[in-house]
Amino acid sequence: MKLYLATQNKHKIDEIAMILAPYSIQVIAAPFKKLELQSKNIEEIALKAVESIEPQDAPVAVEDSGLFIDELNGFPGPYSSYVYETIGIKGVLKLMQGVADRSATFISVIAVKTPQGEIKAFKGETKGTVTLQPRGKHGFGFDPIFQPLGSNKTFAEMSIEEKNIYSHRGKAAKMLAWWLRGII
Amino acid sequence: MKLYLATQNKHKIDEIAMILAPYSIQVIAAPFKKLELQSKNIEEIALKAVESIEPQDAPVAVEDSGLFIDELNGFPGPYSSYVYETIGIKGVLKLMQGVADRSATFISVIAVKTPQGEIKAFKGETKGTVTLQPRGKHGFGFDPIFQPLGSNKTFAEMSIEEKNIYSHRGKAAKMLAWWLRGII
Repeated sequence: MKLYLATQNKHKIDEIAMILAPYSIQVIAAPFKKLELQSKNIEEIALKAVESIEPQDAPVAVEDSGLFIDELNGFPGPYSSYVYETIGIKGVLKLMQGVADRSATFISVIAVKTPQGEIKAFKGETKGTVTLQPRGKHGFGFDPIFQPLGSNKTFAEMSIEEKNIYSHRGKAAKMLAWWLRGII
Repeated sequence: MKLYLATQNKHKIDEIAMILAPYSIQVIAAPFKKLELQSKNIEEIALKAVESIEPQDAPVAVEDSGLFIDELNGFPGPYSSYVYETIGIKGVLKLMQGVADRSATFISVIAVKTPQGEIKAFKGETKGTVTLQPRGKHGFGFDPIFQPLGSNKTFAEMSIEEKNIYSHRGKAAKMLAWWLRGII
């Protein structure tokens, strides 16, 4: 079967495609225009986005994600990509200077709409820490400064396969695969 | 005449009401549900918000605003209120530590929809600098660290009357008053 993924972020496409491939689900990047709401809630953003897309001949999915840093009250959260483009990794590390508790959570929500108009959302969370320095060249966004619990590498030091084992997006995509295949 | 203002921010209501009063325009705070898009463009956010509100028996307005700091590539910009609630003034000052060029611009857009469904937007901009320390107790948000060009006070050291002379919101509200009264 095929699945439309309404994003232009090549990294997201590659990560999700790799999870879905073993389930014989082919990801097709699709530039559907979608509504992107301001909200502190990633799930609300993803649901409203997928609601704004007309049903297609195959399921259509959107993914929204963010890095929530405990000591910064959840910042940059839903606005992670804007924050990455403006103050960047350097800015976030500056905000974390002298901060003892470096706990953070990456959250991903994949919302999907079936050809019949049914909507579901799958949420993946990964806890970890903000590193003192960026490490690694893979991935995108804040991957170089996020080290998930259970690993001594940052997301940017991992291959896509390895990142998918630990990552918020990998977990959400796995649940999507199960649901599309009728396993959950 | 009356004007509905779709906001729950008492400071915005007070500032705009004071500008409009001499034009015999009475501001009525109205909790209309409105769409709040993610966008780097304040004007787009305000226009989409007012578009999402049904025409009323009097003009209905929304105001969106943000502080754009040059050396932070416009951050916090359209997400100023989220950034205020998370990293706050302390976080922005930390990001500005050691930054020589402290230039910033406050932008306000007031978008209005008439009972006939006509839509207009008015943009006010105020250039100034990010101060080294917060000063003053008035206003809201980043007012304590923004000193407009032409004054040696921050917005938070000014009365509403004085802030309205200098402020982005005051300028946008003045244009709105002129337009509602057929002066422009």
